[in-house]
Amino acid sequence: MASIIESVPNISEGRRADVVAAVGAALRRVPGVRVLDLQSDADHNRSVVSLAGEPQALKQAILVLFEHALAAIDLRSHQGEHPRLGAVDVVPFVPIEGASMQDCIALAREVGQAVAERFAVPVFLYEEAASAAHRRNLEDIRRGQFEGLADKLKDPLWTPDFGPSQPHVSAGASVIGARAPLIAFNINLGTSDVEVAKRIAKAIRHSSGGYRHVKALGLMLQQRNLAQVSINMTDYTRTPLHRVFETVRAEAARAGVDVIGSEVVGLVPAQALIDAADYFLRLEGFNPSQVLERRMRESE
Amino acid sequence: MASIIESVPNISEGRRADVVAAVGAALRRVPGVRVLDLQSDADHNRSVVSLAGEPQALKQAILVLFEHALAAIDLRSHQGEHPRLGAVDVVPFVPIEGASMQDCIALAREVGQAVAERFAVPVFLYEEAASAAHRRNLEDIRRGQFEGLADKLKDPLWTPDFGPSQPHVSAGASVIGARAPLIAFNINLGTSDVEVAKRIAKAIRHSSGGYRHVKALGLMLQQRNLAQVSINMTDYTRTPLHRVFETVRAEAARAGVDVIGSEVVGLVPAQALIDAADYFLRLEGFNPSQVLERRMRESE
Repeated sequence: MASIIESVPNISEGRRADVVAAVGAALRRVPGVRVLDLQSDADHNRSVVSLAGEPQALKQAILVLFEHALAAIDLRSHQGEHPRLGAVDVVPFVPIEGASMQDCIALAREVGQAVAERFAVPVFLYEEAASAAHRRNLEDIRRGQFEGLADKLKDPLWTPDFGPSQPHVSAGASVIGARAPLIAFNINLGTSDVEVAKRIAKAIRHSSGGYRHVKALGLMLQQRNLAQVSINMTDYTRTPLHRVFETVRAEAARAGVDVIGSEVVGLVPAQALIDAADYFLRLEGFNPSQVLERRMRESE
Repeated sequence: MASIIESVPNISEGRRADVVAAVGAALRRVPGVRVLDLQSDADHNRSVVSLAGEPQALKQAILVLFEHALAAIDLRSHQGEHPRLGAVDVVPFVPIEGASMQDCIALAREVGQAVAERFAVPVFLYEEAASAAHRRNLEDIRRGQFEGLADKLKDPLWTPDFGPSQPHVSAGASVIGARAPLIAFNINLGTSDVEVAKRIAKAIRHSSGGYRHVKALGLMLQQRNLAQVSINMTDYTRTPLHRVFETVRAEAARAGVDVIGSEVVGLVPAQALIDAADYFLRLEGFNPSQVLERRMRESE
């Protein structure tokens, strides 16, 4: 069975469509790599690519990405609303099928080393690949942004994992790591009272006592005049969709409010939905190999 | 995107392990075909193979299957509990991904014609590929079995769709067609009263007024001392798992009984479970292309 990893690199260019298109075209030419998605945000001045493939094909793709991004992007003149540290800002590797988190950590280290050697860009490892607890969170690594990077690199706490202890002059530094698939999962409430959504978000999110792998906010969908609990599921294998859904339903019922629907934004691994079906259908002894498409890939 | 069809041929040999193993080995050598499963039943004296691949690769596999089965199986000396008409008894084609029912009907016709020409075996088309209403049901076509086949073929109602109007001397006739994926889905009840399961089975099955694509029986799981509603879902795209599950739950509650679990026996298309997750999570506007593995195959 093939070992499939996803990578979702973010580059600091979301305005020049020709530059983004050229990066996408170059990635599509890498053998064994599939470009699943490519989206740019002009306000953020940032683009996000979803790639999938076997580890060595992905490594090749990320090196191609650096080559193109470094030639086209200069952080000294870059402006955008989204915080950023480098031209290729962040490169997570995500286990999808036939690959473990350990495989993704190993790939992050291998790619990080290759990037540092080939492009003289300082590389920080993050999340599951982090080399120290204070370097796990992307926000902490990125604090100070490109403009504060030279000073940050002088601090022994922030010696990069690979590459020089000074910024690449135009490309800054890059953050490379491994994490579980992230699912953007929003739950819509039958109320226009945003306070209900905010209270529920507070109840379910990790930072205020909720589930370990949930980030959540309460907000208004202005056009529908509905309150929404907007959720990032950061590890569905440990905090599953159905548990969060049922908790939101119970908390909403406490306020006399119905859950009227939910939505998945962007991509979702099949297993996250199959786990939900397994739960709601009360399946006994269900094995992922019983999924026909999976059996097909296992027999490849 | 590749067009993937499944085929689940049944052959009339379930006792001679060497014959079955040789058929399996021959099928595994066909380029582009994956053997997902191969199971023999000695009582039935019958084996069932699950194959998947693109249409032309599957056609090649079915011709290889006939070649091996006809060389090894002689219906004149075949005995078993399961009704059968031929050495290769029945060959359904099932749309899985990127393939429509029309594609499967076309493939059934193409394979049926090739089988008749190459092996002089009479072929009946069945289910969605049937050429007349009275020839849709496998049970009707198979009635009289191998032993009654010569007489049946003299009846103008039973002129084969392809091939001669007399049986192949040792291999009888074959039934080839197209159908939706079949899911074996059992629901376990928190009671040892089998009558509850029988009443629920009667309520949900098509033949007694229930759902169009449901066959069901009530039976006892002796070892667990539980009653079970044993279900064949014959088209989950029209009668979905979650609707049947919820109906069984409601009917069981009427009898003061809980649904304590369910089970899927054998393979299930991912979409059947994703549809259940979609229902229970109340997803709004969910598109199958959002499933990461599917997007990967679409971008092949």
